[in-house]
Amino acid sequence: MPSYAFEDMTVGQNFDFEGNYKITREEIIEFARKYDPQPFHVDESAAAKTMYGGLIASGWHTCAVAMRLLCDGFMNQSTGIGSPGVDEIRWIRPVRPGDELKASLEILEVTPSRSKPDRGSIKHKLVVTNQLDEVVMIVTGITMMRRRVPAD
Amino acid sequence: MPSYAFEDMTVGQNFDFEGNYKITREEIIEFARKYDPQPFHVDESAAAKTMYGGLIASGWHTCAVAMRLLCDGFMNQSTGIGSPGVDEIRWIRPVRPGDELKASLEILEVTPSRSKPDRGSIKHKLVVTNQLDEVVMIVTGITMMRRRVPAD
Repeated sequence: MPSYAFEDMTVGQNFDFEGNYKITREEIIEFARKYDPQPFHVDESAAAKTMYGGLIASGWHTCAVAMRLLCDGFMNQSTGIGSPGVDEIRWIRPVRPGDELKASLEILEVTPSRSKPDRGSIKHKLVVTNQLDEVVMIVTGITMMRRRVPAD
Repeated sequence: MPSYAFEDMTVGQNFDFEGNYKITREEIIEFARKYDPQPFHVDESAAAKTMYGGLIASGWHTCAVAMRLLCDGFMNQSTGIGSPGVDEIRWIRPVRPGDELKASLEILEVTPSRSKPDRGSIKHKLVVTNQLDEVVMIVTGITMMRRRVPAD
């Protein structure tokens, strides 16, 4: 059985995920060439002339890495069945080659489904930090989760 | 010179991007194995037993593909210099292997910077549709853009 079902979720719960993810120059460029080929994500010399002063990861790459930390630390031990969306993303600091990202999750809301007794949704804040414990991104998202036992 | 600078942006402008992006089974699995290894994104037989009835793309993969369409259709012909974040993502319909995604952009707000006379920010709605013209995702995001000529 998964460790976390809808019934286990309470507002204010905090999960500090153990793993981290080191993001390399090569991965930043590979991701951005495919999905976000802006100069400051793909071209080191062009990036050096921008306000970022060097290559930075696509914000969508940071989201993808954060999702991996969320899967490893929570989602793949849960009854999560997908997401209708995200309420906010803030890219707070650039992510640079060599950064080691970690994530923590805070449960903000726990809402039983009105129509489906076997599930509910949670709203959560995912905070991503780098190796200096600086916050680089905050994502407020929603996850649908099944219950262990359907509600009455 | 880029085609689109901050001064060229007006509320209500619409851009229909010409390109499309065909998302393959292989790419869905490759992306998800790396960044979002939930069963319905990486395992066809497990996915068949979920409410999705088969493999679907990670929502973050759909965001990445949408960013590529936005780069090709607008951003890389603009004075865009990055983004502080996204105000909302809604994943409305699953994206499945073989889907061909297109995107359009509507300008919602145009806001001059209060502190930096050389730039401003735009808020925009990116609507992503599939080959049946069904909306699969809507992203309300923010982009900072330079002016051609600094404001007085």
